[in-house]
Amino acid sequence: MIINKKWVLKKRPEGLVKNTDFELISENLREIEDGEILIKNEYLSFDPTQRMWLTDLPGYLPPVQIDEVVRAGGIGRVLESKNPTYKEGDLIFGMVGWQTHLITEAKEEDRFRLIPELLPIPTMLNVLGTTGITAYYGLIELAKPKAGEVVLVSGAAGATGSVAAQLAKEAGCYVIGIAGGEQKCNWLKGCGLDTVIDYKNSNVHEELFKAAPNGIDIYFDNVGGPLLETVLFLINMNARVMLCGGISGYNATEPQPGPRNILNLVVQRATMQGFLVLDYLPKSQQAVEKLAGLVLEGKIKHLEDIQEGLENCPQTLNRLFTGENYGKQMLKL
Amino acid sequence: MIINKKWVLKKRPEGLVKNTDFELISENLREIEDGEILIKNEYLSFDPTQRMWLTDLPGYLPPVQIDEVVRAGGIGRVLESKNPTYKEGDLIFGMVGWQTHLITEAKEEDRFRLIPELLPIPTMLNVLGTTGITAYYGLIELAKPKAGEVVLVSGAAGATGSVAAQLAKEAGCYVIGIAGGEQKCNWLKGCGLDTVIDYKNSNVHEELFKAAPNGIDIYFDNVGGPLLETVLFLINMNARVMLCGGISGYNATEPQPGPRNILNLVVQRATMQGFLVLDYLPKSQQAVEKLAGLVLEGKIKHLEDIQEGLENCPQTLNRLFTGENYGKQMLKL
Repeated sequence: MIINKKWVLKKRPEGLVKNTDFELISENLREIEDGEILIKNEYLSFDPTQRMWLTDLPGYLPPVQIDEVVRAGGIGRVLESKNPTYKEGDLIFGMVGWQTHLITEAKEEDRFRLIPELLPIPTMLNVLGTTGITAYYGLIELAKPKAGEVVLVSGAAGATGSVAAQLAKEAGCYVIGIAGGEQKCNWLKGCGLDTVIDYKNSNVHEELFKAAPNGIDIYFDNVGGPLLETVLFLINMNARVMLCGGISGYNATEPQPGPRNILNLVVQRATMQGFLVLDYLPKSQQAVEKLAGLVLEGKIKHLEDIQEGLENCPQTLNRLFTGENYGKQMLKL
Repeated sequence: MIINKKWVLKKRPEGLVKNTDFELISENLREIEDGEILIKNEYLSFDPTQRMWLTDLPGYLPPVQIDEVVRAGGIGRVLESKNPTYKEGDLIFGMVGWQTHLITEAKEEDRFRLIPELLPIPTMLNVLGTTGITAYYGLIELAKPKAGEVVLVSGAAGATGSVAAQLAKEAGCYVIGIAGGEQKCNWLKGCGLDTVIDYKNSNVHEELFKAAPNGIDIYFDNVGGPLLETVLFLINMNARVMLCGGISGYNATEPQPGPRNILNLVVQRATMQGFLVLDYLPKSQQAVEKLAGLVLEGKIKHLEDIQEGLENCPQTLNRLFTGENYGKQMLKL
């Protein structure tokens, strides 16, 4: 008999999450049935979007319901299989949740997919996971950077931002990154970014005007908020603003003001586009191979912030919003 | 000796323009030189964007300078030519300005172009002019409407909006128009729009939720302002928000609040795109022929609001912002 430990949602958090918003419970798992597999989770992924799923606002995925296990991506290994697609020992990417085990049919439409062990597991969860794939599709396939263009990435030390910034360098662009704190900024300089702005120790709006005297062609936005307005003053003709996330507002209890200069999109014939990695996961094999290659060649540097222990899930999620995390946030089970 | 009468800008207007912001002066015109033509203006076009040119804010065209003639499009006829491209009697579209005559080389890069007399001149200035061409490229070439999609047009009784709305009907879409006042709304119903919302006599935000139970696929936005936020709550997956203009803010003395729900673009994988007709004018012949055909077939209804007399230019511009205009605003000289 296998015991699963899991965090379920007990009430909608306000601001940073608290342990008391959840309950950690143990349950005996039943036997698996035909078509199902039993997964033992190895690493859980922590991403800003998970905070959104805990609200009851409509989003691109339904809210996590009260008493449901907290939704999260991660990597697990097949312990037992009655499904011909998977065998014992296989590694699986998927929405595994804040728990030690799960029984699932692991369908692709439910966002489970088998992965070859191309790289160490934490590296795969980082660069080859949803965050890396998000960066690849948002930057390469949608924004289509051309050599010489100026690319700005906010949340540049984050899991998605750091891959987007390095893909932009690889494409021959001039890359400006924004991150919080000296440690993250120094790491980004080591990744080859041309200019790095530390928003915690400078006036990011003023620094941005200095850093982009020739304007901005692509803005890969992970943070939203007042920065978007500043960037809209700086966009060049035919600029592309890729809306990837808005971490600045995820813990907010009321709507944040929007940019007052949206008409600059008209003046500059620019495009602001929202996208979600979910649309690209089913065809992500090409991106995964490309990203794995760049990691092996040393062209994409990466950093993992690995916490441990299922009991630390709530605090690990908060690290993304307090800026404590240094590298892709994950938790080892 | 020909005398030109012209309005020059004397100071930057605040809010609605006043006669005292300008000066109406007469000047003796010199003889034309090789390469030049003399144009006698017949109809001046009045468009919301002209109000923007009178501010000293950076825009897609430089501000009209103090003591310069007020910039405006229009149609004139060649009185005299020393340019092989044009002969006496030809009709010309161009940035002719608030004046009775002008001497110019009438280059295409300065946005002058010869036009065949396909339709009566006011109809051409309306449907085949920059406003109609704006509607054509914004809706057909950029938003790419598919039959059955829901298209919302704000400023729908305006020169651009009414053509965009009717092109969307012609493409097989369900079309919702927003306009101000019973007269304009009734006219739009007669144009075949499926639903028309009178923003002056209803709560446009509430009415919009009722009018679009299945959401909005394309928003052709001529007004900007708070309405954009409401629409962003209603957009469907892969929606296209075409930013054509923002008349609600053109007379404002400080920046208007922006939409607080831009992240809905992410949830719906939607695109917000600014565009300007100037980019399409050089290749607009196809659009002009298509639009002329639709007018002759009765598939695009049109309405012209024709004021008279150069002395009435300032008041005629204000009609666009007070809602007094009924149809494409122009002035006959």
